[in-house]
Amino acid sequence: MGLRKINIDTVFHALGDPTRRAIVERLSKAPLSVSMLAEPLGITLTAVAQHLQVLEESGLVHTEKVGRVRTCRIETAGLSVVEKWIRDRRSTWERRLDKLGDLLAESDG
Amino acid sequence: MGLRKINIDTVFHALGDPTRRAIVERLSKAPLSVSMLAEPLGITLTAVAQHLQVLEESGLVHTEKVGRVRTCRIETAGLSVVEKWIRDRRSTWERRLDKLGDLLAESDG
Repeated sequence: MGLRKINIDTVFHALGDPTRRAIVERLSKAPLSVSMLAEPLGITLTAVAQHLQVLEESGLVHTEKVGRVRTCRIETAGLSVVEKWIRDRRSTWERRLDKLGDLLAESDG
Repeated sequence: MGLRKINIDTVFHALGDPTRRAIVERLSKAPLSVSMLAEPLGITLTAVAQHLQVLEESGLVHTEKVGRVRTCRIETAGLSVVEKWIRDRRSTWERRLDKLGDLLAESDG
Protein backbone atom coordinates (compact mmCIF):
# COMPACT_ATOMS: atom_id res chain seq x y z
CA MET A 1 0.00 0.00 0.00
CA GLY A 2 2.81 2.38 0.83
CA LEU A 3 3.95 2.90 -2.76
CA ARG A 4 0.48 3.46 -4.16
CA LYS A 5 -0.10 6.98 -5.49
CA ILE A 6 -2.77 8.67 -3.39
CA ASN A 7 -4.89 11.40 -4.98
CA ILE A 8 -5.15 14.31 -2.52
CA ASP A 9 -8.54 15.39 -3.99
CA THR A 10 -9.90 11.95 -3.08
CA VAL A 11 -8.57 12.14 0.49
CA PHE A 12 -10.09 15.57 1.17
CA HIS A 13 -13.37 14.43 -0.41
CA ALA A 14 -13.36 11.25 1.72
CA LEU A 15 -12.81 13.19 4.95
CA GLY A 16 -15.48 15.79 4.11
CA ASP A 17 -18.19 13.31 5.04
CA PRO A 18 -19.10 12.97 8.75
CA THR A 19 -19.94 9.25 8.50
CA ARG A 20 -16.56 8.49 6.92
CA ARG A 21 -14.79 10.57 9.59
CA ALA A 22 -16.71 8.60 12.25
CA ILE A 23 -15.45 5.36 10.66
CA VAL A 24 -11.84 6.61 10.74
CA GLU A 25 -12.31 7.74 14.37
CA ARG A 26 -13.58 4.33 15.45
CA LEU A 27 -10.90 2.42 13.55
CA SER A 28 -8.17 4.55 15.10
CA LYS A 29 -9.23 2.93 18.42
CA ALA A 30 -9.36 -0.67 17.17
CA PRO A 31 -9.77 -2.78 14.01
CA LEU A 32 -13.41 -3.79 13.43
CA SER A 33 -15.45 -6.01 11.15
CA VAL A 34 -17.80 -4.38 8.64
CA SER A 35 -20.89 -5.39 10.64
CA MET A 36 -19.41 -4.03 13.91
CA LEU A 37 -18.73 -0.77 12.08
CA ALA A 38 -22.27 -0.61 10.69
CA GLU A 39 -24.10 -1.18 13.98
CA PRO A 40 -23.71 2.12 15.87
CA LEU A 41 -23.78 4.14 12.65
CA GLY A 42 -27.35 3.02 12.01
CA ILE A 43 -26.73 2.55 8.29
CA THR A 44 -26.93 -0.51 6.07
CA LEU A 45 -24.01 -2.82 5.37
CA THR A 46 -24.18 -1.70 1.74
CA ALA A 47 -23.80 1.94 2.74
CA VAL A 48 -20.85 1.08 5.00
CA ALA A 49 -19.25 -0.89 2.17
CA GLN A 50 -19.54 2.14 -0.13
CA HIS A 51 -17.94 4.42 2.46
CA LEU A 52 -15.19 1.85 3.02
CA GLN A 53 -14.45 1.75 -0.69
CA VAL A 54 -13.93 5.54 -0.74
CA LEU A 55 -11.76 5.30 2.38
CA GLU A 56 -9.66 2.48 0.88
CA GLU A 57 -9.12 4.42 -2.35
CA SER A 58 -7.92 7.36 -0.22
CA GLY A 59 -5.38 5.34 1.76
CA LEU A 60 -7.31 5.94 4.98
CA VAL A 61 -8.54 2.41 5.68
CA HIS A 62 -7.28 -1.04 4.78
CA THR A 63 -9.71 -3.96 4.68
CA GLU A 64 -8.90 -7.65 4.49
CA LYS A 65 -11.21 -10.61 4.15
CA VAL A 66 -10.32 -13.64 6.25
CA GLY A 67 -12.80 -16.45 5.82
CA ARG A 68 -16.23 -14.83 5.81
CA VAL A 69 -15.30 -11.76 7.85
CA ARG A 70 -13.88 -8.54 6.38
CA THR A 71 -11.73 -6.74 8.95
CA CYS A 72 -11.10 -3.00 8.65
CA ARG A 73 -8.13 -1.18 10.08
CA ILE A 74 -6.78 2.34 9.82
CA GLU A 75 -4.13 3.16 7.25
CA THR A 76 -2.09 6.32 7.74
CA ALA A 77 -1.01 7.02 4.14
CA GLY A 78 -4.03 9.24 3.43
CA LEU A 79 -3.62 11.23 6.65
CA SER A 80 0.06 11.75 5.83
CA VAL A 81 -0.77 13.24 2.40
CA VAL A 82 -3.07 15.82 4.02
CA GLU A 83 -0.62 16.55 6.84
CA LYS A 84 2.20 17.15 4.36
CA TRP A 85 0.11 19.50 2.23
CA ILE A 86 -0.84 21.61 5.27
CA ARG A 87 2.71 21.59 6.65
CA ASP A 88 4.06 22.84 3.31
CA ARG A 89 1.55 25.73 3.25
CA ARG A 90 2.33 26.65 6.85
CA SER A 91 6.08 26.65 6.29
CA THR A 92 5.77 28.90 3.19
CA TRP A 93 3.53 31.24 5.15
CA GLU A 94 5.77 31.32 8.22
CA ARG A 95 8.86 32.02 6.11
CA ARG A 96 7.02 34.99 4.65
CA LEU A 97 6.15 36.27 8.12
CA ASP A 98 9.82 35.90 9.14
CA LYS A 99 10.91 37.97 6.13
CA LEU A 100 8.36 40.66 6.97
CA GLY A 101 9.69 40.68 10.53
CA ASP A 102 13.27 41.13 9.27
CA LEU A 103 12.18 44.02 7.04
CA LEU A 104 10.43 45.73 9.93
CA ALA A 105 13.48 45.23 12.18
CA GLU A 106 15.75 46.74 9.49
CA SER A 107 13.54 49.78 9.01
CA ASP A 108 13.57 50.21 12.80
CA GLY A 109 17.37 50.19 13.07
CA MET B 1 -12.52 35.68 12.76
CA GLY B 2 -10.79 33.63 15.49
CA LEU B 3 -13.92 32.93 17.50
CA ARG B 4 -16.09 31.95 14.56
CA LYS B 5 -17.17 28.31 14.61
CA ILE B 6 -15.65 26.55 11.60
CA ASN B 7 -17.45 23.53 10.12
CA ILE B 8 -14.90 20.80 9.46
CA ASP B 9 -17.06 19.33 6.63
CA THR B 10 -16.80 22.69 4.85
CA VAL B 11 -13.01 22.86 5.27
CA PHE B 12 -12.43 19.36 3.85
CA HIS B 13 -14.85 20.11 1.00
CA ALA B 14 -13.08 23.41 0.26
CA LEU B 15 -9.66 21.74 0.11
CA GLY B 16 -10.90 18.86 -2.07
CA ASP B 17 -10.89 21.18 -5.10
CA PRO B 18 -7.55 21.67 -6.91
CA THR B 19 -8.33 25.28 -7.91
CA ARG B 20 -9.08 26.21 -4.32
CA ARG B 21 -5.90 24.49 -3.13
CA ALA B 22 -3.98 26.46 -5.79
CA ILE B 23 -5.48 29.68 -4.39
CA VAL B 24 -4.41 28.76 -0.84
CA GLU B 25 -0.92 27.83 -2.12
CA ARG B 26 -0.48 31.19 -3.85
CA LEU B 27 -1.83 33.19 -0.92
CA SER B 28 0.54 31.43 1.46
CA LYS B 29 3.34 33.16 -0.50
CA ALA B 30 1.79 36.64 -0.58
CA PRO B 31 -1.54 38.48 -0.30
CA LEU B 32 -3.08 39.14 -3.74
CA SER B 33 -5.97 41.03 -5.29
CA VAL B 34 -8.83 39.02 -6.81
CA SER B 35 -7.74 39.88 -10.36
CA MET B 36 -4.13 38.88 -9.67
CA LEU B 37 -5.42 35.58 -8.34
CA ALA B 38 -7.63 35.02 -11.40
CA GLU B 39 -4.94 35.66 -14.02
CA PRO B 40 -2.74 32.51 -13.90
CA LEU B 41 -5.71 30.29 -13.01
CA GLY B 42 -7.28 31.04 -16.39
CA ILE B 43 -10.75 31.34 -14.89
CA THR B 44 -13.23 34.22 -14.74
CA LEU B 45 -13.38 36.73 -11.90
CA THR B 46 -16.84 35.34 -11.08
CA ALA B 47 -15.46 31.81 -10.72
CA VAL B 48 -12.64 33.10 -8.50
CA ALA B 49 -15.15 35.00 -6.37
CA GLN B 50 -17.17 31.82 -5.87
CA HIS B 51 -14.09 29.85 -4.81
CA LEU B 52 -13.09 32.69 -2.47
CA GLN B 53 -16.51 32.60 -0.83
CA VAL B 54 -16.09 28.87 -0.07
CA LEU B 55 -12.57 29.51 1.24
CA GLU B 56 -13.75 32.39 3.45
CA GLU B 57 -16.57 30.28 4.92
CA SER B 58 -13.97 27.62 5.73
CA GLY B 59 -11.61 29.99 7.56
CA LEU B 60 -8.91 29.44 4.93
CA VAL B 61 -8.85 32.87 3.33
CA HIS B 62 -9.70 36.36 4.53
CA THR B 63 -10.66 39.04 2.01
CA GLU B 64 -10.96 42.75 2.60
CA LYS B 65 -12.10 45.48 0.25
CA VAL B 66 -10.11 48.70 0.38
CA GLY B 67 -11.36 51.26 -2.11
CA ARG B 68 -12.07 49.37 -5.31
CA VAL B 69 -9.62 46.52 -4.71
CA ARG B 70 -10.41 43.36 -2.75
CA THR B 71 -7.25 41.91 -1.20
CA CYS B 72 -7.07 38.23 -0.26
CA ARG B 73 -4.81 36.77 2.38
CA ILE B 74 -4.42 33.39 3.99
CA GLU B 75 -6.18 32.62 7.24
CA THR B 76 -4.92 29.70 9.31
CA ALA B 77 -8.08 28.85 11.30
CA GLY B 78 -9.32 26.33 8.70
CA LEU B 79 -5.94 24.61 8.43
CA SER B 80 -5.78 24.35 12.23
CA VAL B 81 -9.16 22.58 12.38
CA VAL B 82 -7.95 19.91 9.93
CA GLU B 83 -4.55 19.59 11.65
CA LYS B 84 -6.21 19.08 15.04
CA TRP B 85 -8.57 16.42 13.71
CA ILE B 86 -5.69 14.44 12.16
CA ARG B 87 -3.48 14.86 15.25
CA ASP B 88 -6.28 13.50 17.47
CA ARG B 89 -6.70 10.42 15.26
CA ARG B 90 -2.95 9.80 15.17
CA SER B 91 -2.56 10.09 18.92
CA THR B 92 -5.42 7.61 19.56
CA TRP B 93 -3.88 5.24 17.06
CA GLU B 94 -0.36 5.57 18.43
CA ARG B 95 -1.58 5.00 22.01
CA ARG B 96 -3.17 1.77 20.80
CA LEU B 97 0.09 0.67 19.16
CA ASP B 98 1.95 1.43 22.42
CA LYS B 99 -0.51 -0.74 24.36
CA LEU B 100 -0.10 -3.57 21.87
CA GLY B 101 3.68 -3.23 22.24
CA ASP B 102 3.38 -3.45 26.03
CA LEU B 103 1.22 -6.58 25.75
CA LEU B 104 3.74 -8.22 23.42
CA ALA B 105 6.61 -7.30 25.76
CA GLU B 106 4.71 -8.79 28.73
CA SER B 107 3.97 -12.04 26.92
CA ASP B 108 7.67 -12.20 25.98
CA GLY B 109 8.95 -11.87 29.56
